[in-house]
Amino acid sequence: MSIKIQVLDNILQMNDSFAEENRRIFKEHNTFAMNMMSSPGSGKTTILERTLERLDPSQVAIIEGDMQTTRDAERLERFGCQILQISTGNACHLDGKMIHDAAKELDLIGVRLLVIENVGNLVCPAEFRVGEDAKAVVLSVTEGEDKPLKYPLMFREASICMFNKIDLLPHLDFSLEEARENARQINPQLKFLEISCKTGEGLEEWTDWLQSKMKG
Amino acid sequence: MSIKIQVLDNILQMNDSFAEENRRIFKEHNTFAMNMMSSPGSGKTTILERTLERLDPSQVAIIEGDMQTTRDAERLERFGCQILQISTGNACHLDGKMIHDAAKELDLIGVRLLVIENVGNLVCPAEFRVGEDAKAVVLSVTEGEDKPLKYPLMFREASICMFNKIDLLPHLDFSLEEARENARQINPQLKFLEISCKTGEGLEEWTDWLQSKMKG
Repeated sequence: MSIKIQVLDNILQMNDSFAEENRRIFKEHNTFAMNMMSSPGSGKTTILERTLERLDPSQVAIIEGDMQTTRDAERLERFGCQILQISTGNACHLDGKMIHDAAKELDLIGVRLLVIENVGNLVCPAEFRVGEDAKAVVLSVTEGEDKPLKYPLMFREASICMFNKIDLLPHLDFSLEEARENARQINPQLKFLEISCKTGEGLEEWTDWLQSKMKG
Repeated sequence: MSIKIQVLDNILQMNDSFAEENRRIFKEHNTFAMNMMSSPGSGKTTILERTLERLDPSQVAIIEGDMQTTRDAERLERFGCQILQISTGNACHLDGKMIHDAAKELDLIGVRLLVIENVGNLVCPAEFRVGEDAKAVVLSVTEGEDKPLKYPLMFREASICMFNKIDLLPHLDFSLEEARENARQINPQLKFLEISCKTGEGLEEWTDWLQSKMKG
């Protein structure tokens, strides 16, 4: 299987050179680029809806990655920020080249925050840098405390971990403390937020964090 | 990128030849092999716990696929059936070769049901046949009704779809009817079950379905 490994290495190298070029473009525009990742259905798009209610749409652009459908992009259209949809077809993640092509379509002048919503997948997206300044991982509390241990690369790569759907905690056997402990084993620097898009809990802290990065 | 496509074709061809050989082995032993797939944290292992309480452990074998940790296999050990753990490392799915190697380690004589619990990932596992008789997809109702449309290959390949964690429905905005309708658009033959491992709802129907296959 050495040819497989060689080809994979080449793919990752090619990916990294696009990612570096993307990063140069984002830096040049003073745009904070955040790669948002999670399992399918953890609530990335709903968090983005609640986020866009709280930010100036002219300062935000979104790249939506989905294998199929444009549903997520449609949900965000009403906020009036720039949105670009990437349909990956069979590809299970976004890569540097896709983001490079997308960035060329966006007008980044004045855009302080670019959110890249990745394909719902806790595995493959973590392997592909896209030129982001930070990776955010969303973990729905319905998914169990063990996920950081079972999907360590994702939690190692992330700067911030959002425990989402905490309004459901009274109905679940889920310990936030155990989940945090598991995640800290993988990544002691990881910052945690506890979010509910239903009650609004944690959203102010989240947008404060984003705004501090947008000014940076 | 044509070399990438060529290598991928070769990988899938090699995979299929292992899958066919696996299928021959399962058929020879009169073993019904089920490939169980879902997003991370949809509840595959908990469903298996409830399933193993209801079946004769001498007739069941389990192959547990995880990137890291042996937690799921440990959770199932107490039931006394044969369990084999595959640690995939960085691989985001099980493939025919992994199952071929695992099957050689199992004693399939008298085993009527082999459950292959795949890596938690709604994308990549659907692309790799492992020699199974049926694929089962578990969708937690916390993940949203749109998942069949967003991850169509998984729902097209599956024979049975388990809507899990239905005890949480009163706390969610989730329509089972809409989810079924979305899944039927992708796969009109798909059989549906509604499951709660907390209340036990749907588990009898599920084990009845399995037992009908084990006798077949």
